[in-house]
Amino acid sequence: VEVAKLLELKAVLGEDEGKQKFVLKTPKGTRDYNPTQMAIREKVFSTIIGCFKRHGAEVIDTPVFELKETLMGKYGEDSKLIYDLKDQGGELLSLRYDLTVPFARYLAMNKITNIKRYHIAKVYRRDNPAMTKGRYREFYQCDFDMAGQYDPMIPDAECLKIVHEILITLNIGDFLIKVNDRRILDGMFAVCGVPESKFRAICSAVDKLDKTPWEEVKSEMVGEKGLAPEVADHIGKYVQLHGGMGLIEQLLQDPKLSENKQAREGLGEIKLLFEYLTLFGITNQISFDLSLARGLDYYTGVIFEAVLKQQNDIQEDPVGVGSVAAGGRYDGLVGMFDPKGRKVPCVGLSIGIERIFSIVEQKMEASEEKIRTTETQVLVASAQKKLLEERLKLISELWDSGIKAEMLYKKNPKLLNQLQYAEETGIPLVAIIGEQELKDGVVKLRNVATREEMDIRREDMAEEIKKRTLQS
Amino acid sequence: VEVAKLLELKAVLGEDEGKQKFVLKTPKGTRDYNPTQMAIREKVFSTIIGCFKRHGAEVIDTPVFELKETLMGKYGEDSKLIYDLKDQGGELLSLRYDLTVPFARYLAMNKITNIKRYHIAKVYRRDNPAMTKGRYREFYQCDFDMAGQYDPMIPDAECLKIVHEILITLNIGDFLIKVNDRRILDGMFAVCGVPESKFRAICSAVDKLDKTPWEEVKSEMVGEKGLAPEVADHIGKYVQLHGGMGLIEQLLQDPKLSENKQAREGLGEIKLLFEYLTLFGITNQISFDLSLARGLDYYTGVIFEAVLKQQNDIQEDPVGVGSVAAGGRYDGLVGMFDPKGRKVPCVGLSIGIERIFSIVEQKMEASEEKIRTTETQVLVASAQKKLLEERLKLISELWDSGIKAEMLYKKNPKLLNQLQYAEETGIPLVAIIGEQELKDGVVKLRNVATREEMDIRREDMAEEIKKRTLQS
Repeated sequence: VEVAKLLELKAVLGEDEGKQKFVLKTPKGTRDYNPTQMAIREKVFSTIIGCFKRHGAEVIDTPVFELKETLMGKYGEDSKLIYDLKDQGGELLSLRYDLTVPFARYLAMNKITNIKRYHIAKVYRRDNPAMTKGRYREFYQCDFDMAGQYDPMIPDAECLKIVHEILITLNIGDFLIKVNDRRILDGMFAVCGVPESKFRAICSAVDKLDKTPWEEVKSEMVGEKGLAPEVADHIGKYVQLHGGMGLIEQLLQDPKLSENKQAREGLGEIKLLFEYLTLFGITNQISFDLSLARGLDYYTGVIFEAVLKQQNDIQEDPVGVGSVAAGGRYDGLVGMFDPKGRKVPCVGLSIGIERIFSIVEQKMEASEEKIRTTETQVLVASAQKKLLEERLKLISELWDSGIKAEMLYKKNPKLLNQLQYAEETGIPLVAIIGEQELKDGVVKLRNVATREEMDIRREDMAEEIKKRTLQS
Repeated sequence: VEVAKLLELKAVLGEDEGKQKFVLKTPKGTRDYNPTQMAIREKVFSTIIGCFKRHGAEVIDTPVFELKETLMGKYGEDSKLIYDLKDQGGELLSLRYDLTVPFARYLAMNKITNIKRYHIAKVYRRDNPAMTKGRYREFYQCDFDMAGQYDPMIPDAECLKIVHEILITLNIGDFLIKVNDRRILDGMFAVCGVPESKFRAICSAVDKLDKTPWEEVKSEMVGEKGLAPEVADHIGKYVQLHGGMGLIEQLLQDPKLSENKQAREGLGEIKLLFEYLTLFGITNQISFDLSLARGLDYYTGVIFEAVLKQQNDIQEDPVGVGSVAAGGRYDGLVGMFDPKGRKVPCVGLSIGIERIFSIVEQKMEASEEKIRTTETQVLVASAQKKLLEERLKLISELWDSGIKAEMLYKKNPKLLNQLQYAEETGIPLVAIIGEQELKDGVVKLRNVATREEMDIRREDMAEEIKKRTLQS
């Protein structure tokens, strides 16, 4: 129905058809996915969705654009990266910038206080994309969030378990999940003597520690942000700390930190979290890391970020470094959308899916493993001419039995061309009919890899094909 | 990583948090999908994608927006319905209006002459939506197209087979697929004495015959479009005709039509098409219908449209009427994007998925069948207090064995509440641990429907759950 609206195309171009000067490109920062890329994308998505479903998640979807005011004031100075739609009369609209604000809007709008959902969709940012690093202006986000008033750290621990399961299953290399808590950071700043007004500025300085040496970060704290050198040094001692349960116990004994209510609360819950993670058996890949800062104003409790460890074979690889998943607890966001300010505690995670696509794509290319872009089980072929009708009858029987089947769209294709097509596209079986087979009521089933052929009774064909292609 | 950009939210709203006046709505003509709607959507998609894959289709994806000039001049007067993005510097962009123009752009840009692909994605039209009828400004298209130079009618017949398979599998009621050919329409107009300059105007009048009685259409032809009454009457005789092979043979004998080259070609190919459809065994639901006109300027050969037949029980239902799939051959479109005008013959189909969603949703509501929104196989529950750690250990074992498992995020939930949760959300099994079970090294597995309970050895749990939930 919809394509029918292309009516005018020929009329407009009619006369000098084919001599138009079109710019044949996709918009800056975007790309098409070809069938091979789609096969990779679907494989990665199915791993992730499988995990989300294993954890009982429902799924929702929201429009690609929101009212401009829904997004306004949510992203600070990054608001300039939002794509606005042209004012064509009616509402002012913007493309979504992430999936979290639409999620919060959805919860508040529908007065939902309890949900565990995932949402996989494209978001839009007018950034300067580094497409070689898997960064685009149109890219996927892959979010899992739990909203609801629950006992401490149970959903938080599950979020970390989910990230762990996904990264193990994707098999993209060794990883580490850094964990911290917003309250511990706040407490630490207070204890070190940072004035509360500077918490955020100092926090974003700390956030740079994964890429910048301490000395530089310190000079930013002292020079730009006006911290006393001894205060910075004090912070410096803390943020070098990372470890597990031992470190947590040690900090709980820390004479100063343990005096601070925020820090004590945060440490208590991190301890509880580690107890749960121990039960899950995943503490080997978890590091309590005081230098992990992340969007502090937004998160209210646990924060985490999963990074791939440097590996020798991909050391020089620009996509091999950095964060592949992140998340945390944000108990205040939904309340900001609610007319009465009712809070809905939330904890969630986001998988850095574009980076993962890039890594998997590179691995595939490197391995020279051929990726199939279809799932076709059998090619219906003919050994002689004038068998188009017989091919159509057979393929129709197979389709109706649920078999994925193809044929060449030629009246009289050569057998060799048909076999070649199967080989090139990775179709594992060829069903060959010829005069003799028709007389005998059989079909010759050929295994493309081994070249073995066997006559199968026509009525057993579908079963036989299913049996032979079970693994795929 | 991405959600971290929400930094400013609290800062902006900080003081009077919760007293903001947000407009809590989605943009006009759009909607959220809640988990139940998503469950329906995924069910319908999986049927359709299953069919597309059965026919060997690859999948591609293109960006949600295109360069404005890629879309310009493609949709005639409907161009005013295109959503433009605001000029924020850089390229001028528009949201895609359908998936066909991006497909043609993709083929021309990548010099692809041969592909069989499907593409399911949202498209955007600033229409006045009738949302009760399943019409929105943001809606899905669901397209399958074959590009390539093939022997006549083989891919065209497969398109009709695909539409047939999908509508049978979706089980949304009796349907009819009307088929015609652009060349037959052109030939018919010529034979009736319509001047070539009026072909298009007359064609769009004919297109109204599915909703408007002939007398009105005739008066439009004569009054508005200046046709001689006897010419209109001549057309009127033809467009009332519909049937199968018999009608095709009859028209091939028609003294006037058979003289016209276009009509002869079209009829010859429609005959071939019907031969193939006979081999597929689907001619019962196919009608060669001379009143089917559709976007004539765009299509160059076969055109088709599937309509649901009126059914007594949904007669008054606004979504029960009309087209649920359509398509046709368009051999000229790709060439219009190619700098050298190289043609790539294409034939494709589009499933009217939003209408189908509405129908399935209504059927579900009417049947009061409860739709599950998760796939959870088992709820891990405890019979006594202080068993949180044991629940966490068990659920973790189950997750690691690939079982879809949930638990309540409470330290000490009541057994009754746990059983109730399973019942409400449709989880078929509950794995209950208590002091005694722990001592015995077993887990009590409860069938929620029958309330039967059985002790299962801990190490056999995952297997037992898989066995019992095989069907789901």
